[in-house]
Amino acid sequence: MESIPGVMSSPFIHDDFMLHSLAARELYHNFARDEPIIDFHNHLPPDQIARDHSFADLFEIWLAGDHYKWRAMRANGIPESHITGEASPRDKFNAWAKTMPHCLRNPLYHWTHLELARYFDFYGLFSTKTMDEVWNLGIETLARPTHSCRGLLLQSKVRALCTTDDPTDSLEHHRAIAEDQSFLVRVYPTYRPDRALWVDDAESFNAYADQLSSVSGIDCSTLAGFQDALRARHDFFHENGGRLSDHGLHHLFLSDEVEVSPSRAAAIFDKVRSGQSADVAETEAFGAYLMLFFGELNAARGWTMQLHIGAERNNSSRLFSKLGRDIGCDSMADVNHIAAVRRFFDTLDRRGHLPKVMLYNLNPKDNYPLATMLGNFIVAKPGDPPARLQLGTAWWFMDSKEGMEWQINAFSNTSLLSRFNGMLTDSRSFLSFTRHEYFRRILCNVVGEEVENGELPRDMELVGDMIRRICFQNAADFFALTLP
Amino acid sequence: MESIPGVMSSPFIHDDFMLHSLAARELYHNFARDEPIIDFHNHLPPDQIARDHSFADLFEIWLAGDHYKWRAMRANGIPESHITGEASPRDKFNAWAKTMPHCLRNPLYHWTHLELARYFDFYGLFSTKTMDEVWNLGIETLARPTHSCRGLLLQSKVRALCTTDDPTDSLEHHRAIAEDQSFLVRVYPTYRPDRALWVDDAESFNAYADQLSSVSGIDCSTLAGFQDALRARHDFFHENGGRLSDHGLHHLFLSDEVEVSPSRAAAIFDKVRSGQSADVAETEAFGAYLMLFFGELNAARGWTMQLHIGAERNNSSRLFSKLGRDIGCDSMADVNHIAAVRRFFDTLDRRGHLPKVMLYNLNPKDNYPLATMLGNFIVAKPGDPPARLQLGTAWWFMDSKEGMEWQINAFSNTSLLSRFNGMLTDSRSFLSFTRHEYFRRILCNVVGEEVENGELPRDMELVGDMIRRICFQNAADFFALTLP
Amino acid sequence: MESIPGVMSSPFIHDDFMLHSLAARELYHNFARDEPIIDFHNHLPPDQIARDHSFADLFEIWLAGDHYKWRAMRANGIPESHITGEASPRDKFNAWAKTMPHCLRNPLYHWTHLELARYFDFYGLFSTKTMDEVWNLGIETLARPTHSCRGLLLQSKVRALCTTDDPTDSLEHHRAIAEDQSFLVRVYPTYRPDRALWVDDAESFNAYADQLSSVSGIDCSTLAGFQDALRARHDFFHENGGRLSDHGLHHLFLSDEVEVSPSRAAAIFDKVRSGQSADVAETEAFGAYLMLFFGELNAARGWTMQLHIGAERNNSSRLFSKLGRDIGCDSMADVNHIAAVRRFFDTLDRRGHLPKVMLYNLNPKDNYPLATMLGNFIVAKPGDPPARLQLGTAWWFMDSKEGMEWQINAFSNTSLLSRFNGMLTDSRSFLSFTRHEYFRRILCNVVGEEVENGELPRDMELVGDMIRRICFQNAADFFALTLP
Repeated sequence: MESIPGVMSSPFIHDDFMLHSLAARELYHNFARDEPIIDFHNHLPPDQIARDHSFADLFEIWLAGDHYKWRAMRANGIPESHITGEASPRDKFNAWAKTMPHCLRNPLYHWTHLELARYFDFYGLFSTKTMDEVWNLGIETLARPTHSCRGLLLQSKVRALCTTDDPTDSLEHHRAIAEDQSFLVRVYPTYRPDRALWVDDAESFNAYADQLSSVSGIDCSTLAGFQDALRARHDFFHENGGRLSDHGLHHLFLSDEVEVSPSRAAAIFDKVRSGQSADVAETEAFGAYLMLFFGELNAARGWTMQLHIGAERNNSSRLFSKLGRDIGCDSMADVNHIAAVRRFFDTLDRRGHLPKVMLYNLNPKDNYPLATMLGNFIVAKPGDPPARLQLGTAWWFMDSKEGMEWQINAFSNTSLLSRFNGMLTDSRSFLSFTRHEYFRRILCNVVGEEVENGELPRDMELVGDMIRRICFQNAADFFALTLP
Repeated sequence: MESIPGVMSSPFIHDDFMLHSLAARELYHNFARDEPIIDFHNHLPPDQIARDHSFADLFEIWLAGDHYKWRAMRANGIPESHITGEASPRDKFNAWAKTMPHCLRNPLYHWTHLELARYFDFYGLFSTKTMDEVWNLGIETLARPTHSCRGLLLQSKVRALCTTDDPTDSLEHHRAIAEDQSFLVRVYPTYRPDRALWVDDAESFNAYADQLSSVSGIDCSTLAGFQDALRARHDFFHENGGRLSDHGLHHLFLSDEVEVSPSRAAAIFDKVRSGQSADVAETEAFGAYLMLFFGELNAARGWTMQLHIGAERNNSSRLFSKLGRDIGCDSMADVNHIAAVRRFFDTLDRRGHLPKVMLYNLNPKDNYPLATMLGNFIVAKPGDPPARLQLGTAWWFMDSKEGMEWQINAFSNTSLLSRFNGMLTDSRSFLSFTRHEYFRRILCNVVGEEVENGELPRDMELVGDMIRRICFQNAADFFALTLP
Repeated sequence: MESIPGVMSSPFIHDDFMLHSLAARELYHNFARDEPIIDFHNHLPPDQIARDHSFADLFEIWLAGDHYKWRAMRANGIPESHITGEASPRDKFNAWAKTMPHCLRNPLYHWTHLELARYFDFYGLFSTKTMDEVWNLGIETLARPTHSCRGLLLQSKVRALCTTDDPTDSLEHHRAIAEDQSFLVRVYPTYRPDRALWVDDAESFNAYADQLSSVSGIDCSTLAGFQDALRARHDFFHENGGRLSDHGLHHLFLSDEVEVSPSRAAAIFDKVRSGQSADVAETEAFGAYLMLFFGELNAARGWTMQLHIGAERNNSSRLFSKLGRDIGCDSMADVNHIAAVRRFFDTLDRRGHLPKVMLYNLNPKDNYPLATMLGNFIVAKPGDPPARLQLGTAWWFMDSKEGMEWQINAFSNTSLLSRFNGMLTDSRSFLSFTRHEYFRRILCNVVGEEVENGELPRDMELVGDMIRRICFQNAADFFALTLP
């Protein structure tokens, strides 16, 4: 059978894509498909939403900043000139088209075709045979008001989303968006204070502390002042609707000192402020101290603390020095996380400062140990939702059918899937909301198969209600973000 | 479709539950279903069997001591008062009923409905809609002689079971049970000397050594005496039909010293007996020494040594200080076990003291490495069964369909599934014998699917014989427990 | 249903064995089945090919050196006399026949029956019932010219194979084979210099260095000379068609010193040459140094560097002292490999010496972390193939259906399956080429199922082309071995 560009007897993306049983189809179409989206963690640029940016072409929206695609292109032997280098947007797009047929079984194959179907009404297979058609379709379609940043959010039924922001951020764009009453998507900031932890580089840390001082108007020459400034910004984020923090860590800090005292932390702070970088033990100790402080801030405000652990970043020093961070040279760490995670939660719990938690791990071998560790600290708190600590949805390299199924199974077997907060995109792209669809189809397929084979009761209200809540309502209840 | 309490067109639990192919059904109904049970590891209370205790209600038999259910209830946001606190049994039961519909895809959903079907003839879905009916059914049914401890064992076709007991135990209840010739279930003790290893807490260790001395009548002021006393209790357990030891360890002790000499161990013992707790290195060294001694005792008597490794216990210090051990705050450790396990087996093997072994790991990432490590030390010994060292069935958090399939696959690929000793409950509850049924259905489903798709020959005598032996005869041959 | 020896209504091994969907069958029969083989890593003895050895019986070709079978027999309780001991070949064969019915679900069951079907035209089930027939069939068939070493290679459609050889090897057999123009299978050496790394044993290392000196004619009393000699042998292997090195390591060396200087390495070398074994830190440092040197040699010549990491070897010291290496007492290590692998690749990359890489890991928990780590260093190099660094096919204990599916999925999700170099046997046996068939069936089954369920497009040219290339052409392009 020949693949005819743009014309297939049965298109690849169709209503029942990924839904392999009748029950899966019923669950998806009746309970999942029409639910709106709360995208509670992503990396969308708020300035583009504020000014309702429109994209020139598929290069800009697809390839300019997507290191997933860059890795795939590198694996396909595309020269760097056509990935991050000097080649023209169109040539880079063509290189991507050349790569696509080699992406069979990689999630990019599904993501790309879902995006083409949902946002561009293109149901063919993307390749060099169809690249001209797709390129032109992109230019034509992206010029429409339905395909500006706001247009894409609205057509994707996004009710609220949370960007990822440094505490020093002015949140001017978030405020501008919030002031526009006619725009029915809420855009909230997430408090991500990673730079406050990097005492191993005195120069960068001091620049950061100075910046924080300047933004907050609080003297940051002492640790107490530094913490006050961080707290003030937390308050500021809260005022602007933020209800989540986020922390991207290779591992949760684990100091040899079981509890790092304020005076010990202050001594490290002072040393670094005086211009001397912290050593490894000091960095662990300072990080352990400050992470507990962030936990306390979150608990006090009823926020959720997101932990992204287990990424090994900037592995290629050659490409790092040439291109910087987030350019496709990150991968999975292999760390025995349990001792550090245990101590972190237990300390917060003993102090009465354990916030709601979403923990995302990158290495799949950590799914079960971490999921069971979270379960040790789930104790009901008045006013709080069920399953206060959760294993977050499959992250980054695990954001594939296999990875999502593993996470769903680990969650199901060790906690209550019915209480799961579901999907988020973690993406930099306005086209990525189809990943919610992808997740929902996979979820319905997994659950539907078990309805079909009798491992779950054929009680569609019971099972469908669970599906529906995982798609939207659980997250709405859990994070308590104000919705439009 | 509406779920009608107690009445469904096709009940959730039916004859072919979990059996998704014709071959699976044939294997289960012809080869697995009617086999009796040897439950060679559990935590049933022998005193309740001795006095043939009857249970007042489903709270007592289900909820009073089951930390699996407690964790699920906590995850569902049930307040602690209704889990381990002051609420009434009926209120706690109701809280469990409220939790059940949220347990979809958790093994508790299957376990609960299997128990309700098999022991209470209830085939509906358990929820707040059916909780009154179920509660009353529980009271009524549990009052019957068929539902006393002994009644439940008999109707479950248990031929023998092994409880878990400290060497200081008088075994009075085991002896009382054994004296009753009319009771056709053998109840044997398992020698579990964990407390003899905990030299990191001098006070507790000394209390234990004194108790051991008192029970054995052997002076335990020296290590030699301590070992003599442990050996005497091993003899005593042997006389009472015990043929297995059990050891629950975070990790197998791994001393920096490759072989800990008796004099080194004695020095540590003397220090602790003098009131000073052992440090970490000493605890590892003493544990390594004594575990080899237990191995030697087992080998000499033809016993099987059970090793449960990889649990991270008592993680919530707040709940630990309030409620103590075994209250649902344990989870999976993440340890690189290989070096310690290798040294342990190799040392015993070199000394000619390697007993039969059942090794249970908690973290699924250890299935394959440990299974292959066991294979290194399997060498036939005259009079001993095949596969002298085995990866035990999926344990605790792995006791789910997914976890059991992983264990079955790891065992199949790295050893001979045909020689597997099969299931045990590891449970504190007299209703848990349905987990043998659950395991058998999953086993038959896995194997049956491969008969159906041609990956196994469609030779039902060959394949069915394997199934039958895994259900009962392999364990009967392996452990050499005296059966009624 | 009774298994009738040699006669079954539907034989176990049939045309569509392991192919569970129509699409899988179409892919296998149209795109995979007829592709030739490049077996780019195995342990076949070149001398047997050179003299075109014929095998006396199934004992010789099956049991004399196959530690996979030895482990299975041990697990089945066969005494060591009938495995590696003094029993007769026929008695050992019978013991293997007795073991076979207990191998259900172990890959040996499939491998054995595939070998019997393909090379002996036997389609029954192997057991004590059929062992006489099979033994006689073996003697009769192995005497035919089609079943000599060369006959087996030719009927298996092997176009080229790479043996595994020490740099000191004279390659006389490879040269003899190459001289015979009529033999249309290319037999190339692989450069495996593991013994050059073992400075922890001065005696063995010095013997090796002396041997290397003698073979190369280069003085190896200094590290510079030692490296010159290793380079000279690399050149020699290149002249004889070698294009791959191979390295079997518990873990990639990870010195505390970030970069081991030549003078530091020379100091260690001098110490060992003076008769003193290196300590652990020195061994790591020397290994790290020399592995970078091997990487550089490979990069300079356009070779591929194979890394086999994660085996824990010679675990039973008792059997090691009795039987030596490679006797079935090896298993999976559990090591956190990431830091070492990262540093190794990054250092080579910074130096401009990163060769093509095939990395094989033994512990399945390392599939994803290592696959993603490899992706960090894939950057196109002019003249080089796509996916320059690859996770190699499932190795040893992972060479099962489950293990191969895991590797295929990890590869698919983290790289481009379409660029995968596919299968190799890693075997010591001339009957093992059926494992290419086994792999191809599993690959087609995995991919075919997704064509059938719509997760891959039903475009058989697109999907079939990928299958075909994975079977042969990708490896042909990647390794650039000269083919007949």
